[in-house]
Amino acid sequence: MRSLLLITAAALLVGAAPAKKLPTPTDIVNGAPAGAWRTIPADDLLVMELKSGGRVVLQLAPQFAPVHVANIRALARGNYWDGATIYRVQDAYVVQWGLNESDRGFPAGVTAKPPAEYTRPLKGLAVRPLGYADPYAPGAGFVSGWPVAYNARGNWANLAHCYGSVGVGRDLSPDTGTGGELYAAIAPLRHLDRNIAVVGRVIDGMANLSALPRGTEALGFYKDKAQYVPIASVRLASDMPAAERPAFEYLDTSSASFARYLRIRANRHDDFYIRPAGGVDLCNVTVPVRKKG
Amino acid sequence: MRSLLLITAAALLVGAAPAKKLPTPTDIVNGAPAGAWRTIPADDLLVMELKSGGRVVLQLAPQFAPVHVANIRALARGNYWDGATIYRVQDAYVVQWGLNESDRGFPAGVTAKPPAEYTRPLKGLAVRPLGYADPYAPGAGFVSGWPVAYNARGNWANLAHCYGSVGVGRDLSPDTGTGGELYAAIAPLRHLDRNIAVVGRVIDGMANLSALPRGTEALGFYKDKAQYVPIASVRLASDMPAAERPAFEYLDTSSASFARYLRIRANRHDDFYIRPAGGVDLCNVTVPVRKKG
Repeated sequence: MRSLLLITAAALLVGAAPAKKLPTPTDIVNGAPAGAWRTIPADDLLVMELKSGGRVVLQLAPQFAPVHVANIRALARGNYWDGATIYRVQDAYVVQWGLNESDRGFPAGVTAKPPAEYTRPLKGLAVRPLGYADPYAPGAGFVSGWPVAYNARGNWANLAHCYGSVGVGRDLSPDTGTGGELYAAIAPLRHLDRNIAVVGRVIDGMANLSALPRGTEALGFYKDKAQYVPIASVRLASDMPAAERPAFEYLDTSSASFARYLRIRANRHDDFYIRPAGGVDLCNVTVPVRKKG
Repeated sequence: MRSLLLITAAALLVGAAPAKKLPTPTDIVNGAPAGAWRTIPADDLLVMELKSGGRVVLQLAPQFAPVHVANIRALARGNYWDGATIYRVQDAYVVQWGLNESDRGFPAGVTAKPPAEYTRPLKGLAVRPLGYADPYAPGAGFVSGWPVAYNARGNWANLAHCYGSVGVGRDLSPDTGTGGELYAAIAPLRHLDRNIAVVGRVIDGMANLSALPRGTEALGFYKDKAQYVPIASVRLASDMPAAERPAFEYLDTSSASFARYLRIRANRHDDFYIRPAGGVDLCNVTVPVRKKG
């Protein structure tokens, strides 16, 4: 973008036609060809319906936490969260839901003590590097639509805790949590990377979580059960009738469109921005996701 | 912290007494001596009372945006925001308030076209370096309690757009805004650095802003005026009766306590964290601020 800036200035100096308006990230996304989008499998979509009427859609990441994701699918198929609640909202931290203190028992197919899927091998992943320094890991970039931190020498990669990331609540190590208690990050929480299993992200309805009243007890727990936010149901899209299934697609992070989007996010220069940063944080390059059709 | 890890393991191997529990950031803050805290001047505290009863306290940063801060003080003294509203809440972006479409005229002492206080000279500032790479600037660190990005070669520094930062709404450049329309960042927005005047931060009552319903119009504007959140008053603490003034202090970022706090934030290792990151993002080292007395 710095070179474009020079071209613009030069064009003005010689009295040429007005420079072409520089694109915004939204312009890039809206102009991306159909082939740059990838459909999210219905088996990776988790649909949470709040009793209030709000809907929250999560995308699961089986390539990063297969055992926890298998648990979450089994829990959804067993209607485990019907009547569960959101019982914790800590400002600038997490919104957490599950059964909390009640004990319903797990449906069939749930691994009670999953392995610590906090990282996975880097080998086998095709990474689009971010191209800028990351304070939390030697490398940062994108894999199949996901923000990822990694270490080539140590051969590990982890899903980064960004705004909207969904992780698995746990007690102290070596407990890793089953997936029965989940949280959505309502701030970037990169310091949790590699200490918790990240299983996905919220891709729709985030404001139904982020705008909830904050809990006033320690760690943002609601003081009174009357404040708990009731969940009507949580279903896999693949278990819903075809006509009712939501469908989403993400911008392929290996596409030329994403490369342009990334470059513009790091070098905003349009009608509003006058000084491009020349860099960007991993979590500030939100991967575009949209409803299909 | 990596070396402490080794010591712990070795202690276990030889059957020594259990290793001392490693401190959390909260432990460091709670243990900081009185001399490590700095009182915030009452002239730098802006108290916003919402009609709903919620209070939000802002700390102003005159050393970074003196003309805009002078405007904000003049606006507060002229009761400019009495009856103003919060009219925009964009998820993961900003909560914005002011008079919006109405036009009340400015009280005396307001500079209608302030200079672009997006940066200031680095010279004259004593910086505690963050010690880790920052994607947005050659340098990052802390000055008198504020998170700051900087460039030694270019001799500039700017207040970083972190969660809770307060900036001045503006139209397109060269307009810089007067300070009459302000926003609080409800996410880190480092890409706005050096493109907007940052004038301070929210230090108390943030949840009264961050949990507001999101606006459904473009850019998070509320659709109906009935959704606007009314502001009862905005006053400088120094203009309030002494008995009613709130008082706050921040952990001196040049203190040894802050150095320890920073180190622990970058290397979490306690009962919950098992893998220290070995790094931290500028905005993830929230400078401790607390009520006095």
